[in-house]
Amino acid sequence: MAKNITPKEQNYSQWYQDVIRAAELADNAPVRGCMVVRPNAYGVWENIQSAFDRAFKETGHTNAYFPLLIPNSFMEREAQHVEGFAPELAVVTHAGGEELEEPYVVRPTSETIIGHMYSQWVQSWRDLPILINQWCSVVRWEKRPRLFLRTSEFLWQEGHTAHATREEAYAETLLMLGVYERIMQEHLALSVIYGEKSMNERFPGAENTFSCEAMMSDKKALQAGTSHFLGQNFARAFDISFQGKDGATDFAWTTSWGVSTRLIGAIIMTHSDNDGLVLPPKVAPVKAAVIPISSDEAKLARDLEPAAKKLAGELAASFGGLGAEVDRNYHLRPGDRFFHHIQKGVPLRVELGEREFANGHVTVVRRDTGAKEQVAIDAAPARVSALLGEIQENLYRRAREFRLENTHDVSSLGELKDFFKGSATPGFARAFFAGSSDDEKEIKDITGGATIRCMPQDDEALGKCVVTGQDGARRAIFAKAY
Amino acid sequence: MAKNITPKEQNYSQWYQDVIRAAELADNAPVRGCMVVRPNAYGVWENIQSAFDRAFKETGHTNAYFPLLIPNSFMEREAQHVEGFAPELAVVTHAGGEELEEPYVVRPTSETIIGHMYSQWVQSWRDLPILINQWCSVVRWEKRPRLFLRTSEFLWQEGHTAHATREEAYAETLLMLGVYERIMQEHLALSVIYGEKSMNERFPGAENTFSCEAMMSDKKALQAGTSHFLGQNFARAFDISFQGKDGATDFAWTTSWGVSTRLIGAIIMTHSDNDGLVLPPKVAPVKAAVIPISSDEAKLARDLEPAAKKLAGELAASFGGLGAEVDRNYHLRPGDRFFHHIQKGVPLRVELGEREFANGHVTVVRRDTGAKEQVAIDAAPARVSALLGEIQENLYRRAREFRLENTHDVSSLGELKDFFKGSATPGFARAFFAGSSDDEKEIKDITGGATIRCMPQDDEALGKCVVTGQDGARRAIFAKAY
Repeated sequence: MAKNITPKEQNYSQWYQDVIRAAELADNAPVRGCMVVRPNAYGVWENIQSAFDRAFKETGHTNAYFPLLIPNSFMEREAQHVEGFAPELAVVTHAGGEELEEPYVVRPTSETIIGHMYSQWVQSWRDLPILINQWCSVVRWEKRPRLFLRTSEFLWQEGHTAHATREEAYAETLLMLGVYERIMQEHLALSVIYGEKSMNERFPGAENTFSCEAMMSDKKALQAGTSHFLGQNFARAFDISFQGKDGATDFAWTTSWGVSTRLIGAIIMTHSDNDGLVLPPKVAPVKAAVIPISSDEAKLARDLEPAAKKLAGELAASFGGLGAEVDRNYHLRPGDRFFHHIQKGVPLRVELGEREFANGHVTVVRRDTGAKEQVAIDAAPARVSALLGEIQENLYRRAREFRLENTHDVSSLGELKDFFKGSATPGFARAFFAGSSDDEKEIKDITGGATIRCMPQDDEALGKCVVTGQDGARRAIFAKAY
Repeated sequence: MAKNITPKEQNYSQWYQDVIRAAELADNAPVRGCMVVRPNAYGVWENIQSAFDRAFKETGHTNAYFPLLIPNSFMEREAQHVEGFAPELAVVTHAGGEELEEPYVVRPTSETIIGHMYSQWVQSWRDLPILINQWCSVVRWEKRPRLFLRTSEFLWQEGHTAHATREEAYAETLLMLGVYERIMQEHLALSVIYGEKSMNERFPGAENTFSCEAMMSDKKALQAGTSHFLGQNFARAFDISFQGKDGATDFAWTTSWGVSTRLIGAIIMTHSDNDGLVLPPKVAPVKAAVIPISSDEAKLARDLEPAAKKLAGELAASFGGLGAEVDRNYHLRPGDRFFHHIQKGVPLRVELGEREFANGHVTVVRRDTGAKEQVAIDAAPARVSALLGEIQENLYRRAREFRLENTHDVSSLGELKDFFKGSATPGFARAFFAGSSDDEKEIKDITGGATIRCMPQDDEALGKCVVTGQDGARRAIFAKAY
């Protein structure tokens, strides 16, 4: 067990911070609530970006960039929007040596300024749909910051689309929810439930919000991505209107959807253990570390290091150019060198000692299971690729099983209350619910904080509401959440 | 000639704006001096990013992300730095509903906050070098904004490295200057002069600055990228100190280097013509547009459009997945459809009319020369690839020849003054110079604004200074600049 990491069973929150520090993922910044995303985490983010970006482009979206600063008056045009975001805004009051006539807010999200631009770009139905995404950072002042989960600035993507019909915009909202679920499963090895949010959990200004909800290893929920159907609310506020085929003028229908560096927090809390970070191979910046080991400097220089470099080159080529490195920390003991890669979440260690070199073998060690095997050095690239696939699948399977094992049906308000009593988080409760916004609040009170995470999209069962007793209620997932 | 574009000979500045508007590259934002980077320009930026990012990684750098907001006191720690940037800062004074105790500035560049973090990461020589790059936006308030060239917010990359020795940091500064020059040539088809800046043109806080300077088609210079040797200035201000192999403590030696969305302005002004945008194929988001043409809707649906889609799919596959599109604007006349792609800078048009379809051919038209050729549809992917390579080379060759034709040697102050007299910009003047900062200012005065762009790195000739007459002076490039 790692001495620099508090066991998660002892103090989960401290474990999370220790894993981040040991893996050199992020530091607290000298700016309130902000973080520095260090190269090991930024490399994960680049792989996350690349997977989502490809999926966005395959579904017809292009990227663009809108200003960081938003005139304060724009925020005020949509009543619910400004009410939701006002407490979190950072405000620029001076620029270029002068006080500004109208302050700018640093974007907390870009519906308003993008809505303003769309109103200039859209005149006719031929100008629709607009399918644009933006990668950027946003600022929402946080009173209780936590690395990756809640920081005053975070990196994200925000998709913003405008359509001629309600049906098309609704279909887009669900299409992107599906894209999120698929990429989270295939690349991040997260097993999420996705579905509609309850009224109390909607985005300020949205007609409807959908989300992906993952279960962390402490059995709490984490909202991993959201997709909003904005109706005509922002189109009306910013006058995105168009002339239809029939000549009549109407407001456009818009959507927005986003995922953020929060996903790195989700990856950490889903896969990691008491030795430190565990990364799914598809998002790991270093997928395999080749470690030549000898106390004989001449042998290292003549035999082991050249062989390690050659192998790392072949591995990198098989990964598409990057992702394999040679460990040259010869001043450390072998155990410490291994531990360095374990703590950084590197999926595979490839050890090359003197005896292995003499036999033409390497020892390949899995981060997820610790399993070791001897592989002929020539066969290593193919075997490493296969093992990375197995690790990716294993992590997803484990995450899925954990979520299923810790999801329980409850059929009354009393059972729901019992489920969440006690200090340990028990997991997700599935219950039929058709109550009001006040009923949601009451459940939050009596359970010590459980909320409706979503109403699963692929669950068509209907039943008796645990609060009102009425029939035909949809299933909802209740959980305590980050 | 395009009716919506002012000829560049008539009004260059209006031509530039017209090209941007016709190509839908950018709009002025409702935020003073800021722009919206529209998808066609952002696609260029993604290709620019990808080329530079690969080169950064090949030279051992990794990406990270540091906060957008910088404590005001950090800016003040390096005297020249704060003096240089103070007039351009945007300041956050309120956040989370409260006035801040200490204001934050929106980063104009990140030497200070990155220096602060490096001081925490560096203790020993083993922690060096640190080779980190950041992709982000920065804010520098502009009094006279101009799309892509000078905007209050722009997108860029900033590399920040720390080293144990002066020599290593100096070598890094020049290495990255070389990377810039190579990518600008190979991908952006820019022919730049690269070299040391004069004292008056150095980055605030740098010991030395190097730059790449391109010649625009109006013969003005544009600074396309800079690489700074910061000496120990920032290490001293932020206490980036380390214990060397010998046990002695020393300050680190740092560098920084950046290119920005300004490069899009450079591409526009180097390659475009009076019909609109011309893009080098390697940075063009759409490299080829396939245009099925017929007034017979049944034929379009049955024959032409399926053939066009199949060809576009094959072309996209040959480009690595993206970059080919099918034009379905059947409501426009063919000439207008062609013009749309001409103005957007698409390198190749692939026209597929009824007669072409019947003969199994397409007509391929080059954007750079207007040359047309008939190509068998099966042979089109290979021919398109070859033509894109030719266009890329042709654009670079034209840019290089233009720069060489408009660079002239002058051997006295009088000749220098004569060279720049008159209203038209005459190009670059090469002259030996070993004068003082005041001499530079005087030259700027008597020439109506010409400055030293750089002292070419690969030019080892020495001669008599045009101001002081002293021997052994290096060659400098004088020009009026954006």
